[in-house]
Amino acid sequence: MTVPDPCVEVLVASYLEPDLVERVARSDPRIRVSYAPELLPRPRWPSDHVGIPRDLTADEHDRWTSMLHTADVMFDFDWRRPERTLEQSPNLRWIQATSAGAGQLLEKIGLSSGPLTVTTAAGVHADPLAEFALAGILHFARGLPRLIADRHHRTWRKQETTELAGRHALIVGAGKIGSRTAELLRCFSVTSTGVARSPRPTDPPFDTTTTTDRIAEHLPTADILVISCALTDRTRGLIGRPELAALPDGALVVNLGRGPILDEDALAEALSTRRLGGAVLDVTSTEPLRADSPLWTAENVLLSPHSAANVPSENGKIVDLFLENLGRYLSGDTPLINEFDFDAGY
Amino acid sequence: MTVPDPCVEVLVASYLEPDLVERVARSDPRIRVSYAPELLPRPRWPSDHVGIPRDLTADEHDRWTSMLHTADVMFDFDWRRPERTLEQSPNLRWIQATSAGAGQLLEKIGLSSGPLTVTTAAGVHADPLAEFALAGILHFARGLPRLIADRHHRTWRKQETTELAGRHALIVGAGKIGSRTAELLRCFSVTSTGVARSPRPTDPPFDTTTTTDRIAEHLPTADILVISCALTDRTRGLIGRPELAALPDGALVVNLGRGPILDEDALAEALSTRRLGGAVLDVTSTEPLRADSPLWTAENVLLSPHSAANVPSENGKIVDLFLENLGRYLSGDTPLINEFDFDAGY
Repeated sequence: MTVPDPCVEVLVASYLEPDLVERVARSDPRIRVSYAPELLPRPRWPSDHVGIPRDLTADEHDRWTSMLHTADVMFDFDWRRPERTLEQSPNLRWIQATSAGAGQLLEKIGLSSGPLTVTTAAGVHADPLAEFALAGILHFARGLPRLIADRHHRTWRKQETTELAGRHALIVGAGKIGSRTAELLRCFSVTSTGVARSPRPTDPPFDTTTTTDRIAEHLPTADILVISCALTDRTRGLIGRPELAALPDGALVVNLGRGPILDEDALAEALSTRRLGGAVLDVTSTEPLRADSPLWTAENVLLSPHSAANVPSENGKIVDLFLENLGRYLSGDTPLINEFDFDAGY
Repeated sequence: MTVPDPCVEVLVASYLEPDLVERVARSDPRIRVSYAPELLPRPRWPSDHVGIPRDLTADEHDRWTSMLHTADVMFDFDWRRPERTLEQSPNLRWIQATSAGAGQLLEKIGLSSGPLTVTTAAGVHADPLAEFALAGILHFARGLPRLIADRHHRTWRKQETTELAGRHALIVGAGKIGSRTAELLRCFSVTSTGVARSPRPTDPPFDTTTTTDRIAEHLPTADILVISCALTDRTRGLIGRPELAALPDGALVVNLGRGPILDEDALAEALSTRRLGGAVLDVTSTEPLRADSPLWTAENVLLSPHSAANVPSENGKIVDLFLENLGRYLSGDTPLINEFDFDAGY
C-alpha cells in the first residue's frame, strides 16, 4: 500500500457527528476530509451506519459520484453502489469499516483480496456487547423472569435463589468480544474455555482454550455457551440440534455473533420444554426476526434487535481506531489495525 | 471470654444440612454438637434460617429446653424464646448469627452489651447480593424492560441503546456487600464513591470515599445509588425525598440494606414520573411488602422478596466462617471475626 502525496482525500461515507468529523480533519495537515451528510442515508441514531436510504436528485448523484472519484481513503462503504467501488474510486487504497464483521458485506459487494485494504471496527463493540451478555446471563442466572412475574401478580415468594458464581462458560470465538465477555464473567467467579480456530496458548481471561473442531468435548460442561465468532463457512450452523442437546440441563445460550451460526428452531424447542434455562440473542438468522419464528414466544428468550452495540460511545471509539490507523497509513507503517483477512473471512 | 474445658457444647439452633453438621462435629475433638432438626422450624429451603415454626409436644419442649441449658456456643439464635436466652442457657458464651445484620433481632430480644459475644455472618452474603445488584443495574442500564416489552408485542425496533460503562456510583455502606458491589461495578468501568460512618483512606475498589454526613454533596453525581449499610438510628430514613430529588435524572437506586433506610413512597413517585430510571430492591420497609405499597405497580421496579442472598452456597460459607471462629474460640484467640458491636449497632 503506497500513500499518495502530498494530500490524502478521506471520504466520510456514513453519518458522523460534526465534532468527530473535525477530529479527523485536524488529525494531520495532509488530510482533506470530504463529508456531505445530506448525500448519505439518514441515521436513525448517531451511530447508525445503515440509516434510511435517501432519494438523490440528479445533481446530488453527480456530487456523490465525484466525491467517490477522488477518495483515497473511505470511512465506511459506499451506500449507493458498493459493488462498483473499484471502478467508482480509482484512487481508493483503504476502507475503514464501521462494523466488527465485514465478511457478509464484502461477499455481497464482490470485493475480494485485491488492491484494497479493508479494516474492520473489531474491538469497538466488545464492551457494549459483553455488557449485554452479562445483563442477559444475570437475568436468567438470578431468576429475574420469576421476580418480574411475581411482582406483576403481587406475589411475595421468599425462597432460595440461584447464583452465577461457580458456573463454567464455553466461549466460541476468542476474539475481542469473546475475551471481554470472559473477563467480565471472571469477575463473577465464572471460569471459561475459549474456542479459537487454531490452537493458542491459554492466557487470561480464559482458564483453558480449545479449537473449533473439539467443541463437542466441551459442551457437556458448558453451563453458559457464548457465541462470539464471525460467520464463516466453518461456523455456519456450528451450534445445531446435537450441540444444544449436549449442553447440561438449564444451560444458557448467548449469541453475539451472527444468527446463522445457531439453529434457532432447535433452540426454541429446548427452551420451551425448559431443557435449557435461557437464551440471550443480539442476532437472529433473519433480521428483523421472521414473523413465524418460534423465538417470539419461546420461554426465557431475551431478544435484542441487533442493537446491543449501538451505544452513544460507539462513533468516538471507531474514530479513535480510524485515527490510529490513519497515522499508520500516512507513515507507511503497515499492517493497519484490524486488516480484514480475505482468506479467513474475518 | 473464657473457654470451658474440656468439652464445648455447640447447639445448632437452625436447620443445617447433615454434612455441614458433621463438618462442625469433626472440626475438633473438644467439640460436642447437639442438633435435633425435628425440634426446629421447618426450612422452606436449605439455608432458610427462619422457617415455619413447629408446634412441639410437651416432651419435645423439654428436650429443646435441656439442649439450650447445656449449650456453650449456639449456631443461630433460639427460635422459641430468644428473649430468654440468658436465663435458658446459663453456660452460653457466644452466638454465631446466620445473617449479616443482627441489630434488629438483638434489639427485639433485648440482648445488649453483656456477657455474650455475638458474631454476624457479614461477608457471607456479599457475593450473591452484589450479583443481584449487578443483575438489576444492568437490567435498567441496558434497557431490558423495553426489550422484554417489544418481544411481547412482536416488535423489532433497532435503535440506540444505553450502556453501563462510564457511570458513577455512590455506595452507602462501605462494608463487605458495598465493597463487592463496587468491585463488580469497577469491572464494568463504573467508578464509585464509598460512604462510611467515619473517615477512611481511599482504597480499591472505591475511587473515592466520604462519610455519611457528607452524602448530600455526592448525590448529584450518583448515576447509581447503592444502599448497602446496616439499619441503625443514624441510617433510618437516610435516603428520603430530598436525597432522591438530588440524584441526576435517570439515576438508579439499589437497596441491599434494610427497607426503612429508604423512603419508598418518594421513590415510587420519582419512578412513576420517570424522573429516576429504576429501582432494584432486595428489601422493603415491611416484609412482605404491604398490599397498598406503590412499589407493586411503580414503573421500573425490580423487586426481590429479601431472597437475593438465599443461594445454595450460603450455608457452606456460614459454616466456613463459624469453623474459623470456633478455632479462635477454642484457642482463646480473640476477637472473633464479625463480633457484633453493640455501640455501633452492627
